[in-house]
Parts: sequence; structure tokens; C-alpha cells
Amino acid sequence: MNERPTGHLVPAGDEGGEQPSSRAAAPPPPEPSHAERCRTLVAGSSRGALSTIAADPAGYPYGSVASYGLDERGNPLFFVSLMAEHTQNAMRDPRASLLVTEPVPDGADPLASGRVTLMGQLSPVADDDRPRVRDLYLAANPTSAYYIDFGDFTFYRLDVESIRYVGGYGRMSWVDAERYAAAEPDPLVDAAAGIIEHMNADHADAQVLYCKYLLDRPDTTEASMSAVDRYGFEMIAVGPAGRAAVRLGFPDECTTGDEVRKAMVALVAEARARAAV
Amino acid sequence: MNERPTGHLVPAGDEGGEQPSSRAAAPPPPEPSHAERCRTLVAGSSRGALSTIAADPAGYPYGSVASYGLDERGNPLFFVSLMAEHTQNAMRDPRASLLVTEPVPDGADPLASGRVTLMGQLSPVADDDRPRVRDLYLAANPTSAYYIDFGDFTFYRLDVESIRYVGGYGRMSWVDAERYAAAEPDPLVDAAAGIIEHMNADHADAQVLYCKYLLDRPDTTEASMSAVDRYGFEMIAVGPAGRAAVRLGFPDECTTGDEVRKAMVALVAEARARAAV
Repeated sequence: MNERPTGHLVPAGDEGGEQPSSRAAAPPPPEPSHAERCRTLVAGSSRGALSTIAADPAGYPYGSVASYGLDERGNPLFFVSLMAEHTQNAMRDPRASLLVTEPVPDGADPLASGRVTLMGQLSPVADDDRPRVRDLYLAANPTSAYYIDFGDFTFYRLDVESIRYVGGYGRMSWVDAERYAAAEPDPLVDAAAGIIEHMNADHADAQVLYCKYLLDRPDTTEASMSAVDRYGFEMIAVGPAGRAAVRLGFPDECTTGDEVRKAMVALVAEARARAAV
Repeated sequence: MNERPTGHLVPAGDEGGEQPSSRAAAPPPPEPSHAERCRTLVAGSSRGALSTIAADPAGYPYGSVASYGLDERGNPLFFVSLMAEHTQNAMRDPRASLLVTEPVPDGADPLASGRVTLMGQLSPVADDDRPRVRDLYLAANPTSAYYIDFGDFTFYRLDVESIRYVGGYGRMSWVDAERYAAAEPDPLVDAAAGIIEHMNADHADAQVLYCKYLLDRPDTTEASMSAVDRYGFEMIAVGPAGRAAVRLGFPDECTTGDEVRKAMVALVAEARARAAV
């Protein structure tokens, strides 16, 4: 149930003669901070569940569907109908939250997927900020261009004050709002799904090699990628003892799909070199 | 933008010699009430966005992911960790809502899909009701069987008081709580996705026939099914003038996939008979 990654980064260039004990003492592979994970998760979607405070029944939290864009500090931007319940609610009481969830792969446990709740005040965007917000919103929601200038719609921003992150079983925290605002979404956010699909469709063998020779799991019979970010990637390794989530770091940060491809090739070469020892 | 179905039910057995004007005066095809649509939508999923009232920041609505089952009145049943934020929130303040959304087909406008917000009080299930609730929860969430008897989890029920339904553009309402409780989920709720897939993959021609000869749309060049329920089905009809959502009623209510199949065959025969006139 707890599939928190436990793998270790094998330092590049550490060839031959290593002891399992020295490898066990290697630092864990670098991974995104929870603030980065939140920014990435929120940047990877444009639709969430917006909670506001209802007037009737009074004070009840009201969940609705909302499309959003993001400003540079990760504050969600909404383009809302003045008639919509959530807008009416926010006019009376600005307290709100936006829940964004990672897509759940077919057949996967939904509670193992990541989600972020951003709590803050939901208020109209000031007049002089509207052109900039309009552009940011349209960038995330290109199909809304046909009604973006309707008169009965307006822009609202959720100014994030408090962030709850749940990355799956055993990976959760409250994230500091300033850290969230300062963090960058992972540069692979848009490429990740394609990389994962490609690695699982065409390079399952390479992943078994990684697990066997770079992650000290010689029993591995199958492995599939579950996540990738600038610092490395996660796999589910299957062996006689069951399934485990493992993480392998990239030798250097990868900010494009092409850099990931080169890193994967280099890691295969490293795994083969170790296998030959 | 407003694709509210506008089609008419052609009365069965009305053969030959009909006037367009008399057909225009035919009653609209029967369709589920909003209470039925809500019950069906909620029964068609087992996961939603649960909104509760946070303690910190005080009074802010807090959205989280929750799996649910349903009792016979459509009240959501949750199996929650005592440590989870939403449980802690509900212990202090029982006001809550559950937002359930229809899956959005690839490429479709998310705001055209249906969603329901159920508002009510979220409270622990009484001891003597627990075995029954446990069975109902497990029926909707079979994979939770492995932790259903963990000690730090317990059952909560949302007693629905107020219901907001949004069925897409132009189809929305507040649904009376008693009507919601008394309504039945559509008997085709589990079969609908398979029926739609099959009809669109293998019977696109039949759908064009329905539009041309049973729905007075002789210009139809393409048609695809978007929804089906016990009373009939909806299609997007494409023609030179653009796209329109249309509805065709079944001659008799269909409660199984097999009955739907027979009704579709009968409607094709009727369409062909009209085409031959």
C-alpha cells in the first residue's frame, strides 16, 4: 500500500568493486520538493473543483467545476459567469479553495494519485490587471477564446494562502505559500505523459536493466515507469517479492524530452557496464 | 454553444401521410427528470470532490478527493481515515458537499458535461447501521476490501439536503431533496458507455437514418450518440447548417442493453419504412 520510492541514486562513474553497504549509504536520488510537485501538478491541468461558501444552505461549502489558468506565482485565474453559483458565493464570502487532481491511469488506485488543495481568497481581478490575466487564462484554455469577451463573464483570482499536498499514500504535507509561489513547475510537465507512454511501450527491457543493475534489485522481472521529472523518474519494479516503487536520478537535470532520451541511453550503457562486471 | 436536445418522438405506428406540421406538434420525447439524472450521474461514479469547512484557515472551504458508495436514498457513504483533513473538519463542522462529475470524452468541452453538487451534513454512521453501510460501500469500492476493517477508518454519511444539477449548457436546476431521494438511477447506468461505443463504432449509418427519417433532419450527413437512458437517446447530428443535439425516444422504456438493441433495430426498420414512402 505504501509505494513511496525507496531507490538510491547510483553515483555516475562509480565503476566496479562497490559494496552493497557503501551503495546503501549513497544519498537518496534528488527529487522535486513538495512545493515543486504542487506547482507541477497544478500546471499540468486546467480544470479543478472550486469550493466556495454557499448562501443557502447558509455556510455550507459548495463544490463546482472550474477551468483555470495560472499567474507566475501559481495563483489560479478563473473566467466566471456573474450568474454562476460560485461567483455569487465569492461575492458574499471570498473564502475558497481549488482542488486539482492528477489523472488516474486506467485500473490504478485513485487514492495513490496526487492532488493539491489551494486555499485562499477569491476576488475579482483589478481593471488594470485584466489584459494580462486574460492572456494567461487563454494560454491555458484556448477553446474559451470564443466567449472570452462576453459581457456577463469576468476574471477572478484565487490568492493562495495555504496549500495541502497529497502525493499518494504516505507522501503528504502542508506546503508553505511563499515556497509554492517561488517554486517552478517542472519543465517536463507537458512532456511527461508522452515520455512515460514511450518508455513503457518500447523500453520495458531498459527499465528492467535499471532496476537490476542500478537499483540493486537483481530479482526484477518487470518494470514500468510511473512518473518523470527534471531530477529523475519513478518505476514500479516487479519481482518475486512483489511490487515496489523505486526512483532513479538522472546524472544531470533534464529540462527537455530530448535531454531525457539522452539520459536514458546513458543509463542503459551504465547498467550494461555493471551487468558485465 | 447551447446543445439542448430539440428532437421529437415520432409516435410508433404512425405510418405514411403525416404532415411536418402534425409532427412538430408531437410531444417532446420523454426524458429523465433532473432528479433521475442526478441519481444516475452519482450512481455512475464512486469518486468525487468532498468539500468541508477547514479549521485553519478558519472557515475556508476545503476540497479533497473521496471515494463513496450510496444508500438507497442516494446519500453518499464514505470510509474515511480519522486522521484525514476532511474527517477532522467534519467532526468540528458537519456542513459539507460532494461534487460528482461525468467523465469528459477526449476533446469534448468539459463544461458541456454533467455534474451534481450534493450539499448536506456529514456525520458518522451509527453503530447499528455500520454492517449495512459497509456492504453498500464495498459494492461501490470493491478494491477497498483489503483495508475495510482497519481500526483508524470509519464510515460517514452525507445526508443530502440540497442538490444543484448542471447537465451542461442551459440544463441546470436545483433539485428537490425528496425527489432526489425517491428517484431511481437509470437502469442503463452501467451499460450506457458500452452501448454508446458500440453504436458509434458499428452503427453510424443507422444513426443517420434516425436523424433523416425519424427526426425530420433530411440534411444529416453524420450522427453520433452522446447519451442513452431508459427513455431514449441523444445524438449529435451534423449537417450543412452545423451540429445539433437531438433526442429520440424509445417506443417503450428499455431497462437492459438487450432491450436497447431490439429498440434500435425496430427504429431502423421504422426509419427505412419512412424513407421508402
